[in-house]
Amino acid sequence: MTERLLVIGGDAGGMAAASQARRRKPYMEIVALERGNWTSYSACGIPYLVAGDVATPEQLVARTPEEFRDNHRIDVRMGHEAMAIDLSARKVEVHDRARNRTFQLGFDILHIGTGARPIRPELPGIDLPLVHGVQTLGDGIRLLEVARRDDCKRVVIVGGGYIGIEMAEAFIRWGAAVTLVESSTQVMRTFDPDMAAPIATAMRRHGVDVRLGVRALGFEADGGHQGRVETDAGPIETDLVVLGLGVTPNSGLAGDAGIRLGVRDAISVDRRQRTSHDGVYAAGDCAESFHRVTGRQIHVALGTVANKQGRVAGINIGGGYASFPGVIGTAVTKVCQLEMARTGLNESEAERGGFAYEAVTIESTTRAGYFPDTKPLSIKLLAEHGSRRVIGAQIVGEEGAAKRIDVLATAITAQMSVDDVIDLDLAYAPPFSGVWDAVHIAARKGAEALDRAVADQIRS
Amino acid sequence: MTERLLVIGGDAGGMAAASQARRRKPYMEIVALERGNWTSYSACGIPYLVAGDVATPEQLVARTPEEFRDNHRIDVRMGHEAMAIDLSARKVEVHDRARNRTFQLGFDILHIGTGARPIRPELPGIDLPLVHGVQTLGDGIRLLEVARRDDCKRVVIVGGGYIGIEMAEAFIRWGAAVTLVESSTQVMRTFDPDMAAPIATAMRRHGVDVRLGVRALGFEADGGHQGRVETDAGPIETDLVVLGLGVTPNSGLAGDAGIRLGVRDAISVDRRQRTSHDGVYAAGDCAESFHRVTGRQIHVALGTVANKQGRVAGINIGGGYASFPGVIGTAVTKVCQLEMARTGLNESEAERGGFAYEAVTIESTTRAGYFPDTKPLSIKLLAEHGSRRVIGAQIVGEEGAAKRIDVLATAITAQMSVDDVIDLDLAYAPPFSGVWDAVHIAARKGAEALDRAVADQIRS
Repeated sequence: MTERLLVIGGDAGGMAAASQARRRKPYMEIVALERGNWTSYSACGIPYLVAGDVATPEQLVARTPEEFRDNHRIDVRMGHEAMAIDLSARKVEVHDRARNRTFQLGFDILHIGTGARPIRPELPGIDLPLVHGVQTLGDGIRLLEVARRDDCKRVVIVGGGYIGIEMAEAFIRWGAAVTLVESSTQVMRTFDPDMAAPIATAMRRHGVDVRLGVRALGFEADGGHQGRVETDAGPIETDLVVLGLGVTPNSGLAGDAGIRLGVRDAISVDRRQRTSHDGVYAAGDCAESFHRVTGRQIHVALGTVANKQGRVAGINIGGGYASFPGVIGTAVTKVCQLEMARTGLNESEAERGGFAYEAVTIESTTRAGYFPDTKPLSIKLLAEHGSRRVIGAQIVGEEGAAKRIDVLATAITAQMSVDDVIDLDLAYAPPFSGVWDAVHIAARKGAEALDRAVADQIRS
Repeated sequence: MTERLLVIGGDAGGMAAASQARRRKPYMEIVALERGNWTSYSACGIPYLVAGDVATPEQLVARTPEEFRDNHRIDVRMGHEAMAIDLSARKVEVHDRARNRTFQLGFDILHIGTGARPIRPELPGIDLPLVHGVQTLGDGIRLLEVARRDDCKRVVIVGGGYIGIEMAEAFIRWGAAVTLVESSTQVMRTFDPDMAAPIATAMRRHGVDVRLGVRALGFEADGGHQGRVETDAGPIETDLVVLGLGVTPNSGLAGDAGIRLGVRDAISVDRRQRTSHDGVYAAGDCAESFHRVTGRQIHVALGTVANKQGRVAGINIGGGYASFPGVIGTAVTKVCQLEMARTGLNESEAERGGFAYEAVTIESTTRAGYFPDTKPLSIKLLAEHGSRRVIGAQIVGEEGAAKRIDVLATAITAQMSVDDVIDLDLAYAPPFSGVWDAVHIAARKGAEALDRAVADQIRS
């Protein structure tokens, strides 16, 4: 009989694997189950769909079920949800929503790409229709419908992370009065407080009512679309609540089957994306990653990681060899004309990891200082004592600032010292940077700080 | 007696060293000689001064002679030219242009930063006032004066390298009819022909008459400002000729004194920027560099290298330790809305260096494909057989394309393989890239090409 690969989950973590497996095994039977209505879409594009930057949800779809079927001979079954996995019988119980029937599907190889779901804290009213999470393309379409409604005049965003700030800007673009409540004392907690402060400032300048140190306690609805968020600083009337409190891996199905879970209940995988069970792989938001700087397992839910892990799983499923060496926590976004990016460790992560380091911040420009349209940017750089390695960086600035983080991400991956970064032969012309790129300037300041730290240590 | 550092040359290679030496030796006497009228200016900014992007020449000056004197206690003598170096007597013969007198100046340490000059081939009429080189800020000011003249309606640029294409665009901006003659069959010879082709196309679309395979044979003037360029394809009438044929190191002064010269007559230096003579340093366009990929000495004339080498020389002069590990040939520019960048080796360099490699080219976009204002870009990547290392890359594309070269420059410096680049944790959000950055896509195609090459080799 033909070998059958069964893939659970029709987005990046699942379908990148399915495509790679198909390339290597032309005769394998590949069936993919997707409980929703869309395959291989850009979840990161949802805030831009809601904002109106992207005209239709279809534009966010990289490959449709028909393309998978016709071009890759992958049998994608939409509206099909995996309910249980029987590892010893090598079968999955599948619910077909449209026909409302449940059946068993056998597999030789199983690949799990079940993704993640928005965290919904157990607060009164959390399940009211007023309260929306942002994860699937369906969520994005529903939010766009709400945004277009005339009576959606007030929006409360709960949580000031990536999704929170991006959705805040999306609704500002629709003319809504947007309040963002964040229980900690800063937005964007993956950034250090000093780098996050200008982000909140930019958002306030664009009209977002950013309330820091305010905790949502519950939600109430008054019939129709109105309601309020109860907080520890009083109620906020609203027509819509968007949750931006992060995500949690969809690993219950795997866990119930006896597959080992790891950090934050993400599915534990090895470098080849193999789970604890033979012939069972996992990739994407439902699976663990390895942090190359701290050397620890972590959970990250990012499209880039899902695609990379899915590719690795698929190559291995297809009989090839590929390994995923891990991540370093690189991320970027843009809100209210401010670009922000980070990679490696921030100060609190470095401290928790036991690193001794110097942190320096520099101000520079995106082009030569004298060049038209040059924009300001700040780089914060963390460099380890002893090894002098760059272990983390954050960039905040205007247009053209943030993608410089990739140079630092590459340098961190290569375990470069600040001195190595000073020597980097980076591209220079006045429309692109100063003669010392901002990255060089940060490394120079980092090297000086390390020198001073050594001198101080000897003197003391 | 106080130790005296004498610096010859008031631009980056000289003054970066003077500043670093001052930081480490507060009591050293530092005298710098500059035969021109400007210190520490951005030569790379000159085309933008001529184009009108930069309002005044002063904006291109990073530090004036007064700032060096008042803030750094560096005695910069303008209009002073070093005529001869006597290494045994440790003296330099100096000509003071304003007073028209010549005198001797002793030194304990000598640092040479005499820069480079435009190549002026021995053609009839090459010294006519009609024919301009582009090197010093003075050259830029003179060209700006010409550009502003009502009777400067026709401009011929000889040479299609960085300076040639940038000056061509500058004069198009002034409404002149610009003809660019280039003796080879492509512009931008540091790029492969396939990557250079769209550059010529973009220039033609913007109105530059690009004539490839045409060689200038001489220059004639008809009194006043008019004249013509004689070429092997007939004469071209013009009001101005700009030479863009590259530069040659100003190393005659050093060579005459017996200091060892190296490749292309650039001053030979070790990793600490020390010349063949004790206590004599050199940096910048007059000095050699080391190519980290080919492992050979080369000559590059770039502000970035001059600044880095000058810094290293100054730290060593100041009693510290610094070394300059070399360059990888990274460069970037922009012409007629097209950005172009390169790093490492192009195909002809790789062949001359004896590398066996695969070259792949991919098309991608600067933002997610569906995102507003996304722009096309091409990346060509060269990867070595066996090691699978990235050894070179070229990028041509529209706004936001070119600075990605820095990621590849960092990867080449770290000797990363294409597989390492695929795994890089680069920043992704729809306004900044696709979920696979263009750099990843190029590396994936490179890896596949290497795999195929191995398979072909085994089969054959």
